[in-house]
Formats: sequence, C-alpha cells, structure tokens
Amino acid sequence: MDKLLIENVGIITMEENNFIDEGYIYIEDGIIKEVKSGSFKGEKENLKKINGIGCIALPGFINCHTHVPMTLLRGYGEGLPLMRWLKEKIWPFEAKLEEEDIYNGALLGIIEMIKSGTTSFVDMYFKEDVIAKACKEANIRGFLGNPIIGDGWQGQVEDTISLFEKFKHDEMVKIFIAPHSPYTCSFECLKEVGEVARKLNIPIHIHIAETKDEVYITKDKYSLSPAFVCYETGLFDKNKTLAAHCVYLNDADMEMLLNYDFTAVYNPQSNMKLASGVAPVVKMIRKGINVALGTDGASSNNNLNMIEEMQTASLLQKLNCSDATALNAFETLQLATVNAAKAIGMENNLGYIKEGFYADIILIDFNKAHLNPKTDVYSNIVFSAQGSDVKTVIINGKVVMENYEIKVLDEEKVIFKANKSFKDVLSRL
Amino acid sequence: MDKLLIENVGIITMEENNFIDEGYIYIEDGIIKEVKSGSFKGEKENLKKINGIGCIALPGFINCHTHVPMTLLRGYGEGLPLMRWLKEKIWPFEAKLEEEDIYNGALLGIIEMIKSGTTSFVDMYFKEDVIAKACKEANIRGFLGNPIIGDGWQGQVEDTISLFEKFKHDEMVKIFIAPHSPYTCSFECLKEVGEVARKLNIPIHIHIAETKDEVYITKDKYSLSPAFVCYETGLFDKNKTLAAHCVYLNDADMEMLLNYDFTAVYNPQSNMKLASGVAPVVKMIRKGINVALGTDGASSNNNLNMIEEMQTASLLQKLNCSDATALNAFETLQLATVNAAKAIGMENNLGYIKEGFYADIILIDFNKAHLNPKTDVYSNIVFSAQGSDVKTVIINGKVVMENYEIKVLDEEKVIFKANKSFKDVLSRL
Repeated sequence: MDKLLIENVGIITMEENNFIDEGYIYIEDGIIKEVKSGSFKGEKENLKKINGIGCIALPGFINCHTHVPMTLLRGYGEGLPLMRWLKEKIWPFEAKLEEEDIYNGALLGIIEMIKSGTTSFVDMYFKEDVIAKACKEANIRGFLGNPIIGDGWQGQVEDTISLFEKFKHDEMVKIFIAPHSPYTCSFECLKEVGEVARKLNIPIHIHIAETKDEVYITKDKYSLSPAFVCYETGLFDKNKTLAAHCVYLNDADMEMLLNYDFTAVYNPQSNMKLASGVAPVVKMIRKGINVALGTDGASSNNNLNMIEEMQTASLLQKLNCSDATALNAFETLQLATVNAAKAIGMENNLGYIKEGFYADIILIDFNKAHLNPKTDVYSNIVFSAQGSDVKTVIINGKVVMENYEIKVLDEEKVIFKANKSFKDVLSRL
Repeated sequence: MDKLLIENVGIITMEENNFIDEGYIYIEDGIIKEVKSGSFKGEKENLKKINGIGCIALPGFINCHTHVPMTLLRGYGEGLPLMRWLKEKIWPFEAKLEEEDIYNGALLGIIEMIKSGTTSFVDMYFKEDVIAKACKEANIRGFLGNPIIGDGWQGQVEDTISLFEKFKHDEMVKIFIAPHSPYTCSFECLKEVGEVARKLNIPIHIHIAETKDEVYITKDKYSLSPAFVCYETGLFDKNKTLAAHCVYLNDADMEMLLNYDFTAVYNPQSNMKLASGVAPVVKMIRKGINVALGTDGASSNNNLNMIEEMQTASLLQKLNCSDATALNAFETLQLATVNAAKAIGMENNLGYIKEGFYADIILIDFNKAHLNPKTDVYSNIVFSAQGSDVKTVIINGKVVMENYEIKVLDEEKVIFKANKSFKDVLSRL
C-alpha cells in the first residue's frame, strides 16, 4: 500500500468555514483518508512524508477548457486581427501538425499546467489518443475529446466512440464528446452527438456563444441563439454539458439551461485577448447555473496558468458588475475546484480536500514577500499569488512535482523538443 | 572602477526593431558603455561577469504609481464595498501606523518589486523619509512624495520642501510633490503646489479622475472636471505632472492636457478590483498623451508585480476597444519602461538599454515551459511570463538580485517583521 503524509500544513479544504490553520493530510493508495488539524497519530512505517511548513494545501485546479497542443503556437501570429490571425496563421500551421508535434505541444502545456497547480484538464483537439499518451506519461488527469466539426462529422463521431472504447477503463484519461459549436456543426450532427453522449454516458464539451458574430450566424441561419440551436437538437437532454465561453448567453438562454446539467466555462483571458467580451458570470451564478474556469489554448491567452486566470476572472467580474464585492476570492476558487469537479462529473471525487476524495492536492509556498502578510489566504492566492508559487503537486496520490521540481518528465528535454517541433512545422508551411 | 559584463544574452533594447538575439552589455560605474551582439572584446580584468545564457535582458520596470507601505495591508478588509473598506478598515488601520510599521511595509513591498523586475517606483505616502531609508537599503530608485491633502496642506507642503532639501543631491531618491487629488485638495492648495513645483523644479504626482464619484464631486463643487480643476489652479503650468488613474478623462480634458508635460498613469488591476472603470489608454496614446503604468498599492491590487500588470493592461484595452490588436506587447512594454522614464523626467537615463544610460537592467529566464516556444519574445514577456521569471536585477550598476536571490536584504527577516508589524497595528486598533 502507498502511504503519503503531508504534515505541518495549512489546508484550504474548499468546504465553507473550514480552513485548517495547521494540520495534516493522510493518503492511502491515492485516496485521502484523514484531513485534520494537529499531528498525525497513525502508523508511520513505510510512509512517505512531505513537510508542508509555511505552505497552504488546496485541491488541484481543474482547467475546464483548453486545447493543450496549441501551446506550440504560443505567440505565433501575435497582434493580428482575429480572422486574419486564424486564416493566415493558426489554421495553415495546424494543417501541418504531425502526431509528434501534437505530442510535443501537449507535453509542453502539461508541464506548464502541473507547475502552476493544475491536476486535471478538459481538452478539445485532434489526435486525443496522442494527448492521452502525454497525460499518462505525466500522470495528469485528462478529459479529452476530439473536435467534431463541419462535413466530416460522422467519421469524427466514430473516432470518439473508438477513443471511448480504448480508454473506458482508464484511471487518468476519460473521453468526452466534443462537437465544436452550434455554428460549425450541422443540426444533424448535434442531434447525433446528443444521442451518442446519452448512449456512452459521457459529458459533452462544446463552445457556445463565444463572439457576437457567432450569435449573428445562428440567428441568421436558424433564427435561434447558439444555446437554443443546441436545445432544438436535443443535445442537452439527459446529458452533462460543458460549454466554453458563454459570453453572449441571454436571459432566455439561461432560463432554458437551468433545466439541464449544464456548466458554463469562463475563459476571461482569452475572451479579453481576442476582444470577444465578458461572460455574465455573476448573473449566471445568481440564477443557479454552474460556472467553472478554463484558460482556453495558449495561443489566445498566452499561458495555461489557472492562478493567473482566477485573478483575471474575479477582477473582470468586479469591473463588469461595477461592484468591488462581486465574485470574491473564495467564489473564484470554487470555479477552479468544486464547480469544475461538478462540471466533469467528479463532484464526489475531486474539488475538495476531504476524506474519501482523490488525492489531487497542491501546496502553495507562502514564504514569499508577495504572499505576506497572510491576512486572508483566499485573497492572497487569488489576487497576489503567481503560478510559480506552487511548490508541490500530487495527482492521484502520486507526487508529480516536489519542491518545485517536476518528477514525471524531463522539462528541459520537453522544451527542446517543442521548439524543434515548432520549427519543423514552420519549415513545412 | 566597477565593471560589469552581462554576456550571452538576448537584449530587448526598447528601441524599435532593435532586438539583439545574442549579445552583451558592458557597464562601468553604473553606466551602460556598450550594447552589442556577439562577444565582448574589451579588457576583462577586474570584471564581474553574469552569464545571461537562455535569458532576455530588458530595462528594469518603472512602477509609476504606488503606496508602498500599504503592502502591509494586503488582503485586509477584503471583499467589502469601497467606502466601507476605506472607512471601516483602511483608514482606521493607517491611523495606527508607526514609523517602524511604515518602514517594514515599505521593505516588504520593495522586495516584492525587485523580485518581479521593478527597479524604480513613484510613491505617495506618509513618512517618505522612512521610505527613502528603505530605498537606500535596497538600492532601488524611489521617486517619493508625501501626500498633501485636506486642511493641513500648508504644513505638508513645508514637509515636501524639507524632504526636497534633504535629498536634493541623492543618487537614488528623488522627491516629488504629491497633492492627493483635485477633490481632496483645496483650490488654494493646488495653486500653491504648482508654485512650489515650479520653484523646486520637481514633478507633481497626483490622482485624477479615478472614479465617477470624483467627477460628480468636482462638477458639483466647481462645475469643472477633475482635470480642469487642476488646470484652473495653474497646477500644470510649466510643470511635469504624473496623474494616476485618469479613468474618467473626457475629450476636452485630453485636448487641454496635450498642452502640458503630462503623463496619465494607468493602474488596470486596481481600477478593476475597486470596480472603478477602464482608463481610455488607447485614445490617450492616439491623441499624443504620454501613458505610463503603475500597480497602485497592494491593498487594492493585491500585489506590486509589473509583469502581471502589463498583461492586464493590454488585455483590458483589447476588450475595451473591441480590438484584438489594441495595445500590443511592445506598446505595453513601453508603458512600463520608455514612457515611464519620460514621465519621471529620466528619458535620457532610463527606459532603454543604450550606451550612456543608467544600468537598470533585468534578466528574464526563458528556460521554462511557459516561455516556450520563443516565437515572440515581447508577447511571451507581456502575456506568458510571471514576475518570478525575473532571475537577475541590476540597479544603477549594482546587482541587487542574482540567480533569483536578493542580495541587498534578508527576505525572511523582512517577511517576519512585516507580519509582526501587521499584528502590532491590529493590537492598537
């Protein structure tokens, strides 16, 4: 049996009013067995110990929307208007990506995520089997779906079914079904995706209402909002759906969505960088819609840093609501943990530091000028911390980073290979 | 003679189209003597060398608006509406601050600034002589002014004059005159401040048009916008002015300000956190107003991290202008370097890496997953980097941080003392 003890540590359990000032977390075979203040009294033989002194433990972050291989495109085509950026730079580059490049880009993004405290991510990209391989190598949880888009959708749905079959018993990789969006998928496609999701009992990962243009397109084509296009196809019926962006959801959309197991995934930095707009997060939460957080791909962010994303998430809502109390630090942490766990159907396994839950835990090192005084640990994490303050990362009970050092991968080698892949793709253009 | 060589380094000189892929910077007695690609050919005796391999050098950041001792108040009174936060928390706390606390808070903020690449800062707070002491201990450049506010303004102006006399020959500390704002200073006060600034030939540091309320107040009292209140007092005449915030400058204000040596200091994170609004930065720049960047105090930010501030600065303008090309990475870097140097009257000494300029230089370590590929170094610094990627900091030719380690202060001790001060002040409430 694998036994792990984190001791002398502050603990953000994510249960309200349950911050443990100094305590321990005891883990057996990847499952949290005890979370208490004071010292561990149990059997200490064959026990790996982590001294958490000066650190705060919290549940690992769940990045609910990204395209991880696009880390390779970080900074590529910077400064162009959106459509020129896509047409002249991103799409031609992506067309030349080979499996090896996708793998190298995925590993680069995964290292970045682990180092900034992400322990699970929800991904939409081509060749998710390759990304799955990267996840397993890094021991990170991947919730992966190949994009279903345009005319070739039937084959893509088949691919999803094959992927599902391949990974249905996997501990770390789960397959989601990922129709791209209501404006790039046909009505028939969305209808079929809804059916398949119900049949396989897997969540749907989709983009909805990211831009004003998208709303114009679906209104023009169907006289429906993007969310109602999905509704009309039956996509949401008895399914669990994660919808990235939701910038232009209107009141009627929200009222309709309340009838479903639906999560809006807020991507504030990408929405700002592409000048898309501000998702009505406070309004959605007030109405009762589950909201989680994502970084989107590194090519429109330009990083995969959930600590930074939380800060922007809260600041942007305060500004947008003209209310300095909007989306406070604890609520913001919920987007990245508890709400995210609910979004991916893991509400009984992830998002809290709690007995019986999976040991996906990060330690933030507070021995730094910018994290003192420790007046409000929630606020310090959301508004003052940097991704680099994450000192130790445990996923499924395994220590993947300890004392700032990645244990599962050779970071230098991954960086080298990603740079090489980038140049190789450029040479093919 | 002190000789310092930074070699094998990429150099962002901040001159347009002059990025040096691999070169060196040679420094004598705090002054940059050579900046070239390739290797240094000069005399290598008695030469301290820094190997910049894998790093990018750029001019140190100039934080153009902060209240550094307020670092002690980080996270204090978090989540309250603005006026309750000020009245119930911030002001009563500040009233109990003693010199020792101000000193401890200043040192904490200064360490944070150095570690995230800031080499100069413009400050407004009580007891600037104490803050000056902290600056000299840390070898950071301080441009300091005690606030002039309310009824006691005559004595406060006298204090500024005394401070000026004390530091007028100092290399690292310069005294600015700092009337708080057009809504908290009387007409007579602003008139006198303008006179004194002209007489001493020192810049003015003020808050202008931070909130809608401020505009209502000055319109109600004088039938003038905040900027025009200053104008009417002659404050801007033949003076150099740095005005923090400028969120609610209107077109007439901008046209008027173009006639003066005026800089708007953009504080995006503070303006978002306090739900104040968005400064019209792109419009101001287009009209020809100089714009620089500041963090404001840590109690409304909640850190003093200029790399993070640059990212928010650009993202917020893109969103606000509905234009993904607005305020690009290079322009954003200008706010924190070149434009800032102009704002403080150091345009011939700071802001560029250039022969004859002061050696205020930082090295950013690109050997990290989140800074690769290195497709666009400007974009990677503004959108992907963290403050903690700053590896080495040189101020006035002196190495104040090397290989991530602060050389000038004992960080642990400063953190300990700041936490103690915070508790001491609380106990006096």
